[in-house]
Amino acid sequence: MFANTEPLTPLRFLERSAEVFPDRPAIVHGSRVWTYEQFERDVRRFATALLPLLPGSDGSAGTAASSMTAGSDDAAGSPGTVGPGDAARSARSAVASGDADESFQGAALLERSWPTVAVIAPNLPATLMAHYAVPAAGAILVPLNPRLSARELSYILEHCEARVVLADSSVLETVAQALGEGSGVTLVQIADPESDVHPVRDGAGSGVPTFEEFIDVEPAQPAGPGASGGNGVVGYGVADENAPITLNYTSGTTGRPKGVLYSHRGAYLNSLGEVFHNGFTGATRYLWTLPMFHCNGWCTTWAVTAAGGTHVCLRVVRADEIWRAFDEQGITHLCGAPAVCSIIVDASEAHPLEHAIRITTAGAPPAPSIIERLESAGFDIVHVYGLTEVFGPITICEPQEQWRELSPQERAQQMSRQGVAMIQAESARVVDDSLEDAPADGTTVGEVVLRGNNVMIGYYKDVPATRKAFEGGWFHTGDLGVMHPNNYIQLRDRAKDIIISGGENISSIEVEQALYSHPDVVDVAVVGVAHEKWGERPVAHVVRVNGSTVTEDDLRDHVRDQLSGFKVPDSVVFSDELPRTATGKVRKNLLRD
Amino acid sequence: MFANTEPLTPLRFLERSAEVFPDRPAIVHGSRVWTYEQFERDVRRFATALLPLLPGSDGSAGTAASSMTAGSDDAAGSPGTVGPGDAARSARSAVASGDADESFQGAALLERSWPTVAVIAPNLPATLMAHYAVPAAGAILVPLNPRLSARELSYILEHCEARVVLADSSVLETVAQALGEGSGVTLVQIADPESDVHPVRDGAGSGVPTFEEFIDVEPAQPAGPGASGGNGVVGYGVADENAPITLNYTSGTTGRPKGVLYSHRGAYLNSLGEVFHNGFTGATRYLWTLPMFHCNGWCTTWAVTAAGGTHVCLRVVRADEIWRAFDEQGITHLCGAPAVCSIIVDASEAHPLEHAIRITTAGAPPAPSIIERLESAGFDIVHVYGLTEVFGPITICEPQEQWRELSPQERAQQMSRQGVAMIQAESARVVDDSLEDAPADGTTVGEVVLRGNNVMIGYYKDVPATRKAFEGGWFHTGDLGVMHPNNYIQLRDRAKDIIISGGENISSIEVEQALYSHPDVVDVAVVGVAHEKWGERPVAHVVRVNGSTVTEDDLRDHVRDQLSGFKVPDSVVFSDELPRTATGKVRKNLLRD
Repeated sequence: MFANTEPLTPLRFLERSAEVFPDRPAIVHGSRVWTYEQFERDVRRFATALLPLLPGSDGSAGTAASSMTAGSDDAAGSPGTVGPGDAARSARSAVASGDADESFQGAALLERSWPTVAVIAPNLPATLMAHYAVPAAGAILVPLNPRLSARELSYILEHCEARVVLADSSVLETVAQALGEGSGVTLVQIADPESDVHPVRDGAGSGVPTFEEFIDVEPAQPAGPGASGGNGVVGYGVADENAPITLNYTSGTTGRPKGVLYSHRGAYLNSLGEVFHNGFTGATRYLWTLPMFHCNGWCTTWAVTAAGGTHVCLRVVRADEIWRAFDEQGITHLCGAPAVCSIIVDASEAHPLEHAIRITTAGAPPAPSIIERLESAGFDIVHVYGLTEVFGPITICEPQEQWRELSPQERAQQMSRQGVAMIQAESARVVDDSLEDAPADGTTVGEVVLRGNNVMIGYYKDVPATRKAFEGGWFHTGDLGVMHPNNYIQLRDRAKDIIISGGENISSIEVEQALYSHPDVVDVAVVGVAHEKWGERPVAHVVRVNGSTVTEDDLRDHVRDQLSGFKVPDSVVFSDELPRTATGKVRKNLLRD
Repeated sequence: MFANTEPLTPLRFLERSAEVFPDRPAIVHGSRVWTYEQFERDVRRFATALLPLLPGSDGSAGTAASSMTAGSDDAAGSPGTVGPGDAARSARSAVASGDADESFQGAALLERSWPTVAVIAPNLPATLMAHYAVPAAGAILVPLNPRLSARELSYILEHCEARVVLADSSVLETVAQALGEGSGVTLVQIADPESDVHPVRDGAGSGVPTFEEFIDVEPAQPAGPGASGGNGVVGYGVADENAPITLNYTSGTTGRPKGVLYSHRGAYLNSLGEVFHNGFTGATRYLWTLPMFHCNGWCTTWAVTAAGGTHVCLRVVRADEIWRAFDEQGITHLCGAPAVCSIIVDASEAHPLEHAIRITTAGAPPAPSIIERLESAGFDIVHVYGLTEVFGPITICEPQEQWRELSPQERAQQMSRQGVAMIQAESARVVDDSLEDAPADGTTVGEVVLRGNNVMIGYYKDVPATRKAFEGGWFHTGDLGVMHPNNYIQLRDRAKDIIISGGENISSIEVEQALYSHPDVVDVAVVGVAHEKWGERPVAHVVRVNGSTVTEDDLRDHVRDQLSGFKVPDSVVFSDELPRTATGKVRKNLLRD
């Protein structure tokens, strides 16, 4: 331990807030409240309960004794289970030696087999606590979507080699099925007392303890200042800040999910960025509409704690529950995809706010009509952009003073851009195939590439895919965009969502935005469908506002007023809802089919 | 360069704000305004002008070519001038190898001879720009107090081996005298057009260019993303975040000043901490009452830029100038010693504010009567504590919700405590001689010790003193304090300011606070004077409010009502002003004499 440096980790934020604000409400869930002192104590109980299930507590690989000698081993040695203490050495040696020729740091960390703990649950206190307890016990958290099928879960749980799985009781059967018999994995069920989900005591639930039963242990004292967890010890420090803290599986619309490994350092810095851009303070009351299993809730799981604010949990994202939280819980902030914005503004419970609520939205540009309606009700809208691979948001559409003078329509247009790097991030670029900057002319399309501390360690157990993603020392997002003269980036499309019609590129986002500008359009997705003559032609899927009688021809005319004729969708399909991933992305593959 | 990590440096904040807010006012000085675009451009001109005067531009030690091969040299090699590119390697190797037995990181960095640039000036735009331009040119900034004598300057400029010195024209003669003839140092004068200081063109000023003349060059383009400055290149990155960025000489009340070396990493993290605790945003208008030469203005030189706020310069800390800035410049924040609070509240111009101004104060606990008067006029007062060795403030007296119910007197008492670790800092401790925690009982006195990323690299060219300061892996502040049951620390005294009377310890701070609680007392310092019988006895030096007729006996009675009889000062000396260091600390040594 050095007096003048300390590895960065977001675990420190809980330690500090519990020390400074022990009596302040940290978590609210229905009728239950945890103060910061209680939050920290339950995290410590949770971590203490995990310890015996992780390597290092029983003389197996990775014990304190064996990991102390591991320092002299070849750091680039063969993959195998390691204790968390080894993270320091492997990360350091990766920087210092083997990785010098790589375009990224930490390849060795991707090839190791880390002890992991999966949580498959909605936004409950236990899910939040896992973001601290799992790394404080020296393991890596894998937060998963409870809507995943047994088949999907099976793949992921095997891929990450989860040793402990906590699952909401409502999905316990699916999870048990995914694990199969004799998996050796410890299963724990989270029976949410604030819902009608009850503990499962027979079948899949036989002998499966509830979360409360599981953490019913005498909490270990945390090891001294800055000490790492693991090897039988609970700790809020980490030996090396480049070591992994969580593993987030991408909810890609195609292909096998990839495991995106986050570092303590990246999570710490992204959290501070979230604190700044959201304006989190000790008075913040954050409503958990954004899934914690999506990029660890954009690192807000840690950021709200850093500021000493209050986490207000939410089991289901439903208009009545959200508005009840607004009215009864004094909510100040929330995050979510534009779909969440629509739910809020379309609710029958909607009414003007007494104090402003900040909504940070990402996943797609918020529709101008929704921005207008939310703002007139008293919401503050901030548009951000990111991906799982960059800890969630990495750019923000920073509002400019001069936008105040624009018409609502013009302002919404500015706000629909993806913007500029957040305070903790390096500048985003739009580049051509040779990694040369596209001119900042607002029209030349290139790929958005990113780098810096908020880029993942890499894809777990997939160094080749990582290498490909980091080609040339930049993370390739696969998103196509333009750079405007004011240095704001704007997405044009996912590379695979470009519609090529008669050799011309049609940006599906551009067509979507044209449709969005119609006051009757609530939600829209444009996809390319095969066409004998043109190769592909755009087709729009549209959700109308309640009671609207706008027709296909009206909308096609509306687009024709704004865009070239070849960009006008061949047809418009109306539906009540668009199919989306859990993280709010439209499942365009389903629409195409 | 790696895609997934980037060394932390506060230079990035300027790069980002210039990119995102080019048209926003960045610096205001009298009638002049610099937008962020202009700020960044002038920084680049300044850095470009420095390059030929620094190693690496002319084939001398540290050129790009030679430093590229230096990587294979023994990193712990003999001291000597190095190019900035070497910082990376030396810092890394210090961590990885030689320093393993040290209680701190980076001993090798203290023994090198770094290229330095000194700025001896008040809070002017050029002083602020130097915080970016000097490191962007690959050198280390040494900001110095223009009130220092030629003798003091001579010692420091020799100790840091300054290659370039920028001095306010008003002190040019003193600086020239300090440098002596044939020093080989490049001298530049800053003639503040917003004051009555004019360029000196004869005598000491013969041939000495003004700042405007010096930076009148075509600015170099900054090197690519994350590239370091130095070796003939301007860059807003740094190869290793543990490399030094500035060198701050302590204005200790006794002994030779020590050079405190700050790292890029520490400056970056402290800046983000300042942003959070001050609540800096893009709408911040920060008044520069705190000297930039004191801990780089508590890192606020970088923090305000990080938030995209506006720096409002101030040549002299005078009541009329400060109130003019409040009334005409929409000031939102300022920092300063309690003496600055007194100046503000005692001003004839004082009047209730239209919007709140946040004052962050340190150096001594603010007097309860001053807190009350400032708050009733609409100021927000925050009390922080730190030292030069920890980048300025490291603890903050975080206000608690329940304090709202306290009487003003009780609340002021809580606010007079030094508090808890800032968001970016590790917990402060109060320990006994064996580094064991003192009980958190509010009465057991121990030494305040600190550690973490906001602790200096060490004392420049003084590894033995650094080793002593970091004994046991903690920075020893030399301040004595207690730990309260709520984890707030409270200083009792500087070790050397404890008065030992008849074997009993008397805390001079305790007696000062008793005196402060008298409504007629504006400023106070209690010192120990030699006494034949008791060893030492306390003597109070007091400044009364204008027109007060309070007597020595009144004040002794007032103290006797609160403290044990042996703590009552033997005598009270009235004066118009207490002698202070430039950073607001009372020069108790002068009072003792």
